[in-house]
Amino acid sequence: MLDQTTICAISTSPGIGAISIIRLSGSNAVSIADKIFESPKKVKKLVEQPANTIHFGQIISNNEIIDEVIVSIFRAPHSFTGENSIEIACHGSIYIQQKILEILVENGARLAQPGEYTQRAFLNGKMDLSQAEAVADVISSSNAAAHKLALNQMRGGFSKEIRDLRDQLLHFTAMVELELDFAEEEVEFADRTALRNLTEKIERLIRKLKDSFKLGNAIKNGIPVAIIGETNVGKSTLLNALLNEDKAIVSHIHGTTRDVIEDVVNIHGTVFRFFDTAGIRETDDHIENLGIERSYSKLELATIVLLVVDMENPYPIVKGRIDKIRKRISKGQLLIVVANKIDSGLPKTIQQVEGIDFTDNEKLVFIAAKQKKNLNKLIDFMVHAVNFDAANQEDIIVTNARHFEILKNAHESILRVLNGLDTGITGDFLAQDIRECLHYLGEITGEISTHEVLGHIFKNFCIGK
Amino acid sequence: MLDQTTICAISTSPGIGAISIIRLSGSNAVSIADKIFESPKKVKKLVEQPANTIHFGQIISNNEIIDEVIVSIFRAPHSFTGENSIEIACHGSIYIQQKILEILVENGARLAQPGEYTQRAFLNGKMDLSQAEAVADVISSSNAAAHKLALNQMRGGFSKEIRDLRDQLLHFTAMVELELDFAEEEVEFADRTALRNLTEKIERLIRKLKDSFKLGNAIKNGIPVAIIGETNVGKSTLLNALLNEDKAIVSHIHGTTRDVIEDVVNIHGTVFRFFDTAGIRETDDHIENLGIERSYSKLELATIVLLVVDMENPYPIVKGRIDKIRKRISKGQLLIVVANKIDSGLPKTIQQVEGIDFTDNEKLVFIAAKQKKNLNKLIDFMVHAVNFDAANQEDIIVTNARHFEILKNAHESILRVLNGLDTGITGDFLAQDIRECLHYLGEITGEISTHEVLGHIFKNFCIGK
Repeated sequence: MLDQTTICAISTSPGIGAISIIRLSGSNAVSIADKIFESPKKVKKLVEQPANTIHFGQIISNNEIIDEVIVSIFRAPHSFTGENSIEIACHGSIYIQQKILEILVENGARLAQPGEYTQRAFLNGKMDLSQAEAVADVISSSNAAAHKLALNQMRGGFSKEIRDLRDQLLHFTAMVELELDFAEEEVEFADRTALRNLTEKIERLIRKLKDSFKLGNAIKNGIPVAIIGETNVGKSTLLNALLNEDKAIVSHIHGTTRDVIEDVVNIHGTVFRFFDTAGIRETDDHIENLGIERSYSKLELATIVLLVVDMENPYPIVKGRIDKIRKRISKGQLLIVVANKIDSGLPKTIQQVEGIDFTDNEKLVFIAAKQKKNLNKLIDFMVHAVNFDAANQEDIIVTNARHFEILKNAHESILRVLNGLDTGITGDFLAQDIRECLHYLGEITGEISTHEVLGHIFKNFCIGK
Repeated sequence: MLDQTTICAISTSPGIGAISIIRLSGSNAVSIADKIFESPKKVKKLVEQPANTIHFGQIISNNEIIDEVIVSIFRAPHSFTGENSIEIACHGSIYIQQKILEILVENGARLAQPGEYTQRAFLNGKMDLSQAEAVADVISSSNAAAHKLALNQMRGGFSKEIRDLRDQLLHFTAMVELELDFAEEEVEFADRTALRNLTEKIERLIRKLKDSFKLGNAIKNGIPVAIIGETNVGKSTLLNALLNEDKAIVSHIHGTTRDVIEDVVNIHGTVFRFFDTAGIRETDDHIENLGIERSYSKLELATIVLLVVDMENPYPIVKGRIDKIRKRISKGQLLIVVANKIDSGLPKTIQQVEGIDFTDNEKLVFIAAKQKKNLNKLIDFMVHAVNFDAANQEDIIVTNARHFEILKNAHESILRVLNGLDTGITGDFLAQDIRECLHYLGEITGEISTHEVLGHIFKNFCIGK
């Protein structure tokens, strides 16, 4: 399975910079580098140099100097990939970067595939699969919380949690197998109460991991926020005001005109994804109705729902609106009623809205979006809506969709075990479900992996990673 | 003058990559790195490690791990800047890069100014000023010829040429001063014929360098090409066809609508700058006339003038057009008459155009721009128009506009010396002009430099360079 060829790629960000790094990895990395490298007095051979040392020299091709470079030597197994590796720090011109790659290929290296360095690190046992996946997350994380989760996963925090789970499952299997060994004597050796307690504990752990994905995904990709309300209540004004709060707009994801538009923005270090929904209201326009249905379906995906109501409207209209949306909000979602246009609102409406009883999952904030009045209060509610403190503790948070899917499967297996214990199923059936659960957890760490799974994981990496 | 503070910057291309390099330089570089670096067993201190070694560890801030990194140690004077230096290879996320810079600043480093590393290398005597300037050129060169010139200059090829010139000038001064010592005896000690020969030799060298700038600039910034011709003869079609010849369009420089538009394109490794001029023809439109005048003035800057004529027109019109432009072409320019639309042209016109006598500075090529017919022939003429072989020999080619300006001044000084010798001026006046010439050459290598000149040179560098 292990490919021993020497691979090369530019590992720094594409484009022009003061320095660029070209990375070479494989059994012949050092000897290939020697073919194109010349030390100042032409006496030094890189293959004769100790590992973890740096050497100044020139890259030569057809007796022509391509660049003056610094070469770093790493030797198996003490390198990122676990193989012999060379890093060439050259001047960061596009021309030089391409030229050096060209020469390396002429001298026996081949261009690396996306993520091939990390894949080799995994295949050489330098890290497990969840750690390898985290390398990409570390590189792409754009805020402190996401960074911390990715780094912890890369450093093996998540792997340890999965290993602990596997240990408990193996302990369970041992108990069941003891029972099976004595099956002919019809002795129920394993104490079923003890088994049940252990299973419940494992189920809780898997469920906790599975459920943490909602938070993990919000941290990694942004907290999903839906802004809803009738036309002309000030939804767009509010969205623009929030986007301008912090200049660091990450991206705009535009669909078709009437489709949902997503804006990703980092407000005080917390990333939010705004669905700028079409106005949710009754309408005869068929196309617009389609847009509205889409808005409602998106509503379910939102962690925070901002319902914008217009204080210039009479109270019954506002109240009817709030009540209608309240019915659509489920547990775990935060509804923030944003009472807009307080500067020009009807005093009576404002007073009566203040009198509404709100639950713990509901907040009320009076703002004037146009005048950017009270926006900080709204942002405060939003930032505290998700318990990001979780990320500051040592809890393991799942951020990877692949892991989440696997954990759902593992959770189903363990629920079957629980159910089996309740219905008095025999030990061998219990053992089968446990083995299935073990199999799933093995998929996370890569103890069980197929060529397809690896291909799928690493194809989304950059080249050079 | 030397600033001893420790500076830090991201030295790789901005953006996300597998790896980024953060460079730290200054007397405290290693001790500052120690404050934020932790080796696997927390036992290693970077200050105790030998130079040119690589160390794996973590970057720590407030007991929190920011990243796992590879640190390279360089010690004065054996580093790029000539100072103690540290390179931190971290994961290339924007978050990590910014965070590490932040921590470095908290621990006593300061953010580097543009080009400050190279400026320090110059101030610490690691390279002269023309070499330092070439560092930026090496990084920005986008083709083999420009790269070769920049690398040669960075490695001191140009500096050596200037040093040789200075040696000859000093030899001249020695001869003149010998004469001055014996001035009271009214002995003309220095043989004026020998002096004249030496001066002529120096003048030739300086003139050659000065004149090489035209080639150097063409190699560095592209060969200036003007495309001219009446409206509707197919200028735009031709330009687009040429731009599509090679997908590697470097940039479009758009002015106002009627202004000259420049397209820079790399065709088979040679860079051309196209002035897409407004149609040069008689017109009553005042604004358009302004555009035409600008086209004519740009004509003088072109090394190659492509005059597009329409074979569908009667011969007298075509001939009149060619004759008119011929008058505007000066020595050293290449006029290529591009006879367009041969597929649908008048056979008589084509025949008669073939019969025109062209000089060595003129070429004729029949094409059909729309059908992309015969474009290769035209490109052949263009690529061979400039003697790029010069760049393949060991000749020194000036590519830097600052050097060109200085060489013009130096040339004027040396012409004054020649003139002085002819008019029998006394030795002390000759010596003064020679000193002036020496002064100019010193400005190129930086032996003579002001804070303003340095500021001007390095402000155009990137940060991290």
